[in-house]
Amino acid sequence: MDQHTNLLVVSAHAADFVWRGGGTIAKYVKAGANVSLVILSYGARGESNDLWKVEGQTLENVKAVRRSEIEAAAECLGVKDYEIWDYEDYHMTITPERTLQLVRKIREARPNVILTHGPRDAFNPDHETVSRFVFEASVLATSAGVRDVDLPKIKQPKLFGFEPHQSEISDFKPEVIVDITDTYEQKYAAMNCFKAQKHLIDYYAAKAALRGNHARRCSGNQQYQYAEAFSRFFPLVGGELI
Amino acid sequence: MDQHTNLLVVSAHAADFVWRGGGTIAKYVKAGANVSLVILSYGARGESNDLWKVEGQTLENVKAVRRSEIEAAAECLGVKDYEIWDYEDYHMTITPERTLQLVRKIREARPNVILTHGPRDAFNPDHETVSRFVFEASVLATSAGVRDVDLPKIKQPKLFGFEPHQSEISDFKPEVIVDITDTYEQKYAAMNCFKAQKHLIDYYAAKAALRGNHARRCSGNQQYQYAEAFSRFFPLVGGELI
Amino acid sequence: MDQHTNLLVVSAHAADFVWRGGGTIAKYVKAGANVSLVILSYGARGESNDLWKVEGQTLENVKAVRRSEIEAAAECLGVKDYEIWDYEDYHMTITPERTLQLVRKIREARPNVILTHGPRDAFNPDHETVSRFVFEASVLATSAGVRDVDLPKIKQPKLFGFEPHQSEISDFKPEVIVDITDTYEQKYAAMNCFKAQKHLIDYYAAKAALRGNHARRCSGNQQYQYAEAFSRFFPLVGGELI
Amino acid sequence: MDQHTNLLVVSAHAADFVWRGGGTIAKYVKAGANVSLVILSYGARGESNDLWKVEGQTLENVKAVRRSEIEAAAECLGVKDYEIWDYEDYHMTITPERTLQLVRKIREARPNVILTHGPRDAFNPDHETVSRFVFEASVLATSAGVRDVDLPKIKQPKLFGFEPHQSEISDFKPEVIVDITDTYEQKYAAMNCFKAQKHLIDYYAAKAALRGNHARRCSGNQQYQYAEAFSRFFPLVGGELI
Amino acid sequence: MDQHTNLLVVSAHAADFVWRGGGTIAKYVKAGANVSLVILSYGARGESNDLWKVEGQTLENVKAVRRSEIEAAAECLGVKDYEIWDYEDYHMTITPERTLQLVRKIREARPNVILTHGPRDAFNPDHETVSRFVFEASVLATSAGVRDVDLPKIKQPKLFGFEPHQSEISDFKPEVIVDITDTYEQKYAAMNCFKAQKHLIDYYAAKAALRGNHARRCSGNQQYQYAEAFSRFFPLVGGELI
Amino acid sequence: MDQHTNLLVVSAHAADFVWRGGGTIAKYVKAGANVSLVILSYGARGESNDLWKVEGQTLENVKAVRRSEIEAAAECLGVKDYEIWDYEDYHMTITPERTLQLVRKIREARPNVILTHGPRDAFNPDHETVSRFVFEASVLATSAGVRDVDLPKIKQPKLFGFEPHQSEISDFKPEVIVDITDTYEQKYAAMNCFKAQKHLIDYYAAKAALRGNHARRCSGNQQYQYAEAFSRFFPLVGGELI
Repeated sequence: MDQHTNLLVVSAHAADFVWRGGGTIAKYVKAGANVSLVILSYGARGESNDLWKVEGQTLENVKAVRRSEIEAAAECLGVKDYEIWDYEDYHMTITPERTLQLVRKIREARPNVILTHGPRDAFNPDHETVSRFVFEASVLATSAGVRDVDLPKIKQPKLFGFEPHQSEISDFKPEVIVDITDTYEQKYAAMNCFKAQKHLIDYYAAKAALRGNHARRCSGNQQYQYAEAFSRFFPLVGGELI
Repeated sequence: MDQHTNLLVVSAHAADFVWRGGGTIAKYVKAGANVSLVILSYGARGESNDLWKVEGQTLENVKAVRRSEIEAAAECLGVKDYEIWDYEDYHMTITPERTLQLVRKIREARPNVILTHGPRDAFNPDHETVSRFVFEASVLATSAGVRDVDLPKIKQPKLFGFEPHQSEISDFKPEVIVDITDTYEQKYAAMNCFKAQKHLIDYYAAKAALRGNHARRCSGNQQYQYAEAFSRFFPLVGGELI
Repeated sequence: MDQHTNLLVVSAHAADFVWRGGGTIAKYVKAGANVSLVILSYGARGESNDLWKVEGQTLENVKAVRRSEIEAAAECLGVKDYEIWDYEDYHMTITPERTLQLVRKIREARPNVILTHGPRDAFNPDHETVSRFVFEASVLATSAGVRDVDLPKIKQPKLFGFEPHQSEISDFKPEVIVDITDTYEQKYAAMNCFKAQKHLIDYYAAKAALRGNHARRCSGNQQYQYAEAFSRFFPLVGGELI
Repeated sequence: MDQHTNLLVVSAHAADFVWRGGGTIAKYVKAGANVSLVILSYGARGESNDLWKVEGQTLENVKAVRRSEIEAAAECLGVKDYEIWDYEDYHMTITPERTLQLVRKIREARPNVILTHGPRDAFNPDHETVSRFVFEASVLATSAGVRDVDLPKIKQPKLFGFEPHQSEISDFKPEVIVDITDTYEQKYAAMNCFKAQKHLIDYYAAKAALRGNHARRCSGNQQYQYAEAFSRFFPLVGGELI
Repeated sequence: MDQHTNLLVVSAHAADFVWRGGGTIAKYVKAGANVSLVILSYGARGESNDLWKVEGQTLENVKAVRRSEIEAAAECLGVKDYEIWDYEDYHMTITPERTLQLVRKIREARPNVILTHGPRDAFNPDHETVSRFVFEASVLATSAGVRDVDLPKIKQPKLFGFEPHQSEISDFKPEVIVDITDTYEQKYAAMNCFKAQKHLIDYYAAKAALRGNHARRCSGNQQYQYAEAFSRFFPLVGGELI
Repeated sequence: MDQHTNLLVVSAHAADFVWRGGGTIAKYVKAGANVSLVILSYGARGESNDLWKVEGQTLENVKAVRRSEIEAAAECLGVKDYEIWDYEDYHMTITPERTLQLVRKIREARPNVILTHGPRDAFNPDHETVSRFVFEASVLATSAGVRDVDLPKIKQPKLFGFEPHQSEISDFKPEVIVDITDTYEQKYAAMNCFKAQKHLIDYYAAKAALRGNHARRCSGNQQYQYAEAFSRFFPLVGGELI
């Protein structure tokens, strides 16, 4: 990964990209890659339970809080290019227009790598919807015959899926474990921007340590302290046994 | 892969390493890696059907034919360091002594990468036995407390599995697809050394082309013409989304 | 299969029925069965990449090219009864009206066997949509209470799924392997009608040879040279262990 | 199935072939097929709980009771060629000698179809052992290089697995459902020969009716009343979509 | 289960709750639990085949017959609180309004346990639709941010899935087996209220006996005669190894 | 669980029962249950890497260290009845004599619940061996015909599997999550007795917190802070939807 690498991250709700991929995203930024982040919703309905405990809370206010949290977290990770599409969450619905919106975004960003939710997530139907949404838009983005968008088709990017919250009951297998020891502090700072989901900070800190243990065990490399795990949508293609 | 890379290949029968990994092995040799090859049996009982059609055939003769075929094939691939352990095949049985023999070999070769049979292979119980055998020996080879062998333990190597003959009914998933366009001719030459299994040459030539198609489709790289597919025993650990 | 057999084939795009079932379809025709073919789309958007490379290409022209290719291919296979429903592809969408259209078709054709796409196809969301579409229409077609269509309900037909392009990552298991040695030449001729997907001709020729190898291995019958593999939607019911 | 059909049945314990395949076996006999039955053990330890409730019971006597039950059951089904190999059950162990014994039997019987236990059976490790045992012996029986037995190799037979007692937790899928309406009375009579497992008679009578319901539903054929379900070891190979 | 237990049952068609959960529902009623039953459709199109054989049959009449059957069956089980939402069946479609209708119902009933269809049901797309529908509504019902309904969010209930008609090909695993020996007579009476599906009465009577056998085998408790099996949507959480 | 509950725990190596089940075991002790613990090996070869770093280390000394650690840990959990069978580990092998030894132990302890390793454990073949060993011995222990041991057969106990170290790649599904908030301190103290595996203490502390999060999420009960997850060998059988 370097300045020729384009990474597109698509996050269903405000904080998903931080809990599940913050350390990896920060590594790409650090390496000079072009990172584009699309946040589809504020997660106002489904992932802001603590905010709604405030007497007289309004949707507008919840979104405003979330927006400032996103801003702060993106800064922690060094992500400058991000968009919030303000879809309604819980349940997020996909229309042909939204598909075209994402096809256009993909053809603009021309990613080598797309990072989004994996296909299954127990308890979280939105994540499954977004996984399918991104996959299908990526197929259209690579087809010459799809001409609704006046941008040239792109080459097949790699697609990776975030680890869901409860991995085993979501049929998640860690296929790629990325060492984030160098950027873990940034991730930890970014997580702390989401005050409405305080209990998740401890959770994902513990998770990063566990995945670090797995990274050491699978590789024999004792330098790895923290890591993030991902699934892949397609087989790895390369020049050797990696 | 370069001169610091140690690749250990363990093949159940005479020709398995050629059909299933010949192109990849040749790439490692070409890149200057240290390639060690262990062939556990001549495949005299289970994989020499055509030789046994010869009137008055003897086991000694079948082995001699296979030995010269192995020799020729190894030369085609550029593999100089190979051993034939002459286990009986169909059914191959593993004893504690054989396990120690392999632990010793692994501790000597100190591989970064081990390539052998994957866990399931319909119609071929020997391949399943060898997969387990190599995996278990690798576990012992990395344990400090295993001292039956007076060689120091090794760091956890990566383990990869060959594609079995009938992939789908063997639950094989292609997790790593290695481009072998550069070494395909060597592989083709090596395959042609095994005259007793003539029908397999066409089969694995067709297979290499099919995997080449998949390699192009999954990567968008149109240069790939031929490829080999492998399964992995553990998740990939690395510094980015590969 | 004979003149009392009704086979209904539903193909998502122009050429799917040829790549994936051409040899089998030709066998049914040859045996005197009544073969009806429904092609849901021209595949103009998602499966005509080469045609779109032509300067100034238009949708109308792409469809015209595809139409003549279909015509030629159907003739090669001996299929006379075919319809092109001209749905937009990539992404194909199903409406209640389309479901009724297919229910009506099924009740007219009264198939003993329906052949269409299997439930999973990596990289090809349309194939998955069509698989579900055909399955669901077949359920309605067998229900006495579904009276939107003034045709009597049919008896439960058998349903089979095409082999998808990348079988393993689409969770495909070959459950029925049909010998197509007798009709392979027809299939090969039919494949050659699709000039826009030239690279697929080699691919599916190689595939037919590989499946021929599997057919020989699983049956012991050395006459099989070429074959096609299919999944089944339901268990086989019969009078013996077939 | 006719007089040219050779069916070999291998049953782990005294009554397995009756509960799980009695109706199908009787159909083969009725059709004039050559049916050979090998019963590996009396099931004296693991499947004769009721007999051991008798005060002063002895192993010899348990075996004698089981032998007469087998005799009576075989007669009900019309099976004349059966052998009891008197292996110890719970846990049955397989030696190289036993494998050769079975290879010899297979090469003598030259089966087109082998019927035995499927690969998984929760609560019953013997059934899993036997499934592997039969599969591995069948591989040896088809290999020209296996010459420990002075009988010529056979052509690849079809292999089918019995339905285990608790199907779902044994990962059983009914892949072939055989209509046994014509021979159900024989099966019912044969089941009644096993007085020590009385509770299983009701169980397998109910099961046959349930599978009959599934047979009707999957085929649309309302004549099916009773059926038995089996798994298959390899894909079906044939000339049409069966 | 006692008077503090709230059980909500959601049944896709008229009789599903009886065939698949009647005995368990009756147990909850008997124990004083508050049982609410929602029947989404009369099953007039897809599950009333026998009624449509009557000359001149009308939809209105079919529904009237089904309504009186439901009434009678509910009385047999002791269920007083039930609603029929009269959705069209085959194919049932879910709209945002219907989702809100169910969210409201869930927030009113405040169930500890929800019982509905499991995620897969071969041959029955409606059951799969309802499974997803209930799961997704339950997620909304527990989210503070979902305010379309002026009722407070509920605590996470347990969700269980009915056993589908053909369990194995629907990937069903019996995760909870409930003893219904005490209420089996009530279930049997309730089943007999559905005259249009007579053949299913024998089927589910046999099934209850089979599951009783499994209950005895898995627990060692010989008192169990009849049982019903269910899948679970999430892991069991508790204070011991149950 | 109370004084009528017999829990038998079988641990492959010295510390497995602590990392994977310590909190749950302590709960059983606290509730007055009769807890028997069998530790099959000291884990001297495969799970004492740090001890072997000491210059001049001997097997005897490693075992002595492990013995005192076990003693201390058992005391932390309140377990008084434990045995160390001193099998060699890595690779542990099972003989018919060892099976009888365990059958005898099971018939003596007469457990309602057996807790041991689950069937799959990536990187740890011993755990898989022990899982099978315990399961098979439990089958013999419940069979009246198994008379090698002069103790009466037992009723079918429940069997549960520990969570393996890398859960997802070991195909582990958390089927029962046990709240250990009350005994977490005891578990933490017990873990601290194993100084040779220091890095695992942090690991399993983090794991207990993660499983506590899952316990809260799946149950809605906010009191749960720490938990342990287990797989089950057979379906739950009971009187309600638990």
